[in-house]
Amino acid sequence: MSRFFTEKYAELVPYTPGEQPKDQQYVKLNTNESPFPPSPGVLAAVEAEAKRLQLYSDPESGEVSRAFAASLGLKQSQVLATNGSDEALNFAFMAFGRELAFPDISYGFYPVFAALNHIPYTEIPLREDLRIAAEDYEGLGKMIVIANPNAPTGLCLSLGEIEAILKANPDQVVLIDEAYVDFGAESAVKLLGEYDNLLICQTFSKSRSLAGARLGFAIGSEALIRDLNTIKYSTNPYNVNRMTAAAGLAALREDFYYKENARTIMENRAWTMAELKKLGFAGTDSRSNFLFVRHPALGGEALYKKLKARGVLVRHFKKPRIEDYVRITVGSREQMAVLLRETEAILKEAQA
Amino acid sequence: MSRFFTEKYAELVPYTPGEQPKDQQYVKLNTNESPFPPSPGVLAAVEAEAKRLQLYSDPESGEVSRAFAASLGLKQSQVLATNGSDEALNFAFMAFGRELAFPDISYGFYPVFAALNHIPYTEIPLREDLRIAAEDYEGLGKMIVIANPNAPTGLCLSLGEIEAILKANPDQVVLIDEAYVDFGAESAVKLLGEYDNLLICQTFSKSRSLAGARLGFAIGSEALIRDLNTIKYSTNPYNVNRMTAAAGLAALREDFYYKENARTIMENRAWTMAELKKLGFAGTDSRSNFLFVRHPALGGEALYKKLKARGVLVRHFKKPRIEDYVRITVGSREQMAVLLRETEAILKEAQA
Repeated sequence: MSRFFTEKYAELVPYTPGEQPKDQQYVKLNTNESPFPPSPGVLAAVEAEAKRLQLYSDPESGEVSRAFAASLGLKQSQVLATNGSDEALNFAFMAFGRELAFPDISYGFYPVFAALNHIPYTEIPLREDLRIAAEDYEGLGKMIVIANPNAPTGLCLSLGEIEAILKANPDQVVLIDEAYVDFGAESAVKLLGEYDNLLICQTFSKSRSLAGARLGFAIGSEALIRDLNTIKYSTNPYNVNRMTAAAGLAALREDFYYKENARTIMENRAWTMAELKKLGFAGTDSRSNFLFVRHPALGGEALYKKLKARGVLVRHFKKPRIEDYVRITVGSREQMAVLLRETEAILKEAQA
Repeated sequence: MSRFFTEKYAELVPYTPGEQPKDQQYVKLNTNESPFPPSPGVLAAVEAEAKRLQLYSDPESGEVSRAFAASLGLKQSQVLATNGSDEALNFAFMAFGRELAFPDISYGFYPVFAALNHIPYTEIPLREDLRIAAEDYEGLGKMIVIANPNAPTGLCLSLGEIEAILKANPDQVVLIDEAYVDFGAESAVKLLGEYDNLLICQTFSKSRSLAGARLGFAIGSEALIRDLNTIKYSTNPYNVNRMTAAAGLAALREDFYYKENARTIMENRAWTMAELKKLGFAGTDSRSNFLFVRHPALGGEALYKKLKARGVLVRHFKKPRIEDYVRITVGSREQMAVLLRETEAILKEAQA
């Protein structure tokens, strides 16, 4: 810390992104990226847009926002495009966070955003089976943040459970982070008409193969989105660049491609889980593009390290209750075959 | 404002970006964009990068940061890549702003960032001739923010004057915003070795024709940049997307193209100013890619409106002391010819 750094942030412990080692080529299953490249229309759109980069981007991100809203049956004024959904989350914490409640095991950025914005927060423990129990979030008098499906467990709440939380907290914003919703969970978008306290974040990083483009959205009532725009226009009016807006728009037009990819990932997830079970693993019923598994004979950290030594990156969290687990991104069938082969070899080695 | 919006930001008045009307084709001279498209290498780099968008960007923006630092004779650890220089400014205000001082007439976002971060600020009046006087910034006991050249005046401080401010405020960060430095001002980068309180922001939006890509940099001591990284990794670790990083790297490799364009803009500036003087205008000695001029017979707002009606967009600020002026982006010779033709017609009309 320099002698100039403000006391306001002296205690801040930043988020640690998933590692990106460059010492060798890895089978990268640690940051929940898609194994599929963006669709052809994305490449064409980006190429065309690159010729106009001397001009500022549209601060409203109008075209992609309208198309995204339309794909959900909403109006442009009900969505806000952001520089990845991390920015949408931060804007939401800024705009609506007086006090916060979120699960003790979830996206590791929630406590960081809370600290950044000096918002007191309560971590609600997951139940014994790692599930979020809706009744634990009733009448807390705090803004509630829930990832659905949750990370890194992959478990999801039903719409009925989310509705119970919305009903029990009518004077608080309930933020549902749907980063992984396209892999088998149900979106809360259809509840928007009934609950003015519902705010949703989505991202193009996972199911739409645009992690490297940074595009997220906040979705809510016109009033909530107006508030988020107050924050955005006071922080970074041109937050989404031209190329990303064009890529997002093109991706929306080729939705069939991404739907098909999501289906493939769900198939690969089921297959990989079945194979891992044959090797003695147990895991959660993940509805995400990752698995969350553990083995009775091998700790999570040991497995993570041994896989890394063999060129396969997965993610391990040094955190009570989940340190036995590893989180494995579901990639292509070929990537999963490598993971299984190396895991099997590691287990054999451990038994020898 | 919704019933959920936090009191913390209730008073916030967001920044208003330059208008982007879509009702007709305009000669756009209102947002200081470059009239030149990005260089061929930028197009090729973006095209190649678009194929990898399913993978997250490098949170360090390592390649472009190293190349940019090297172009200034610095190390990577002395620069931080941001989503436009607005993000660099906001991070700097967050990290180092306890109290602030900046000119009363300058980039309109400074007071907004100050309000966003709840930092008290003092606006130091420009002198009668619209100049920043270095001695007005001595020993204020506040973080100082100065655009050099200043906007919208285009006037600049000498390095000696900046050094005087740095010396007079050894315990405060002095932030020099060099958005327009490539059009005839001198960069403070060469003072970095001597002053640990110096922080600089630059952007690729103006001289490097990448306004629509959003790439800025903070430049300073390793200690200051480390602090800014603490903020960045608590706000948006993947703040610069893959395509923008690739575009920036390619632009750095084709520096000759952008230097030549900057030279052309400076020539067009001199020519346009000379022509405007023939029409009776007076203006500042701008070292930026814009002119700041007024006419004795026509108010700034009237001129702005009449030019807009004739398809030429310039910027007018409804602000005491400068409301007689308009700010005109210096574009291509053709654009400037249209501006002059329409301005002449407007003046004739006014005399009739």
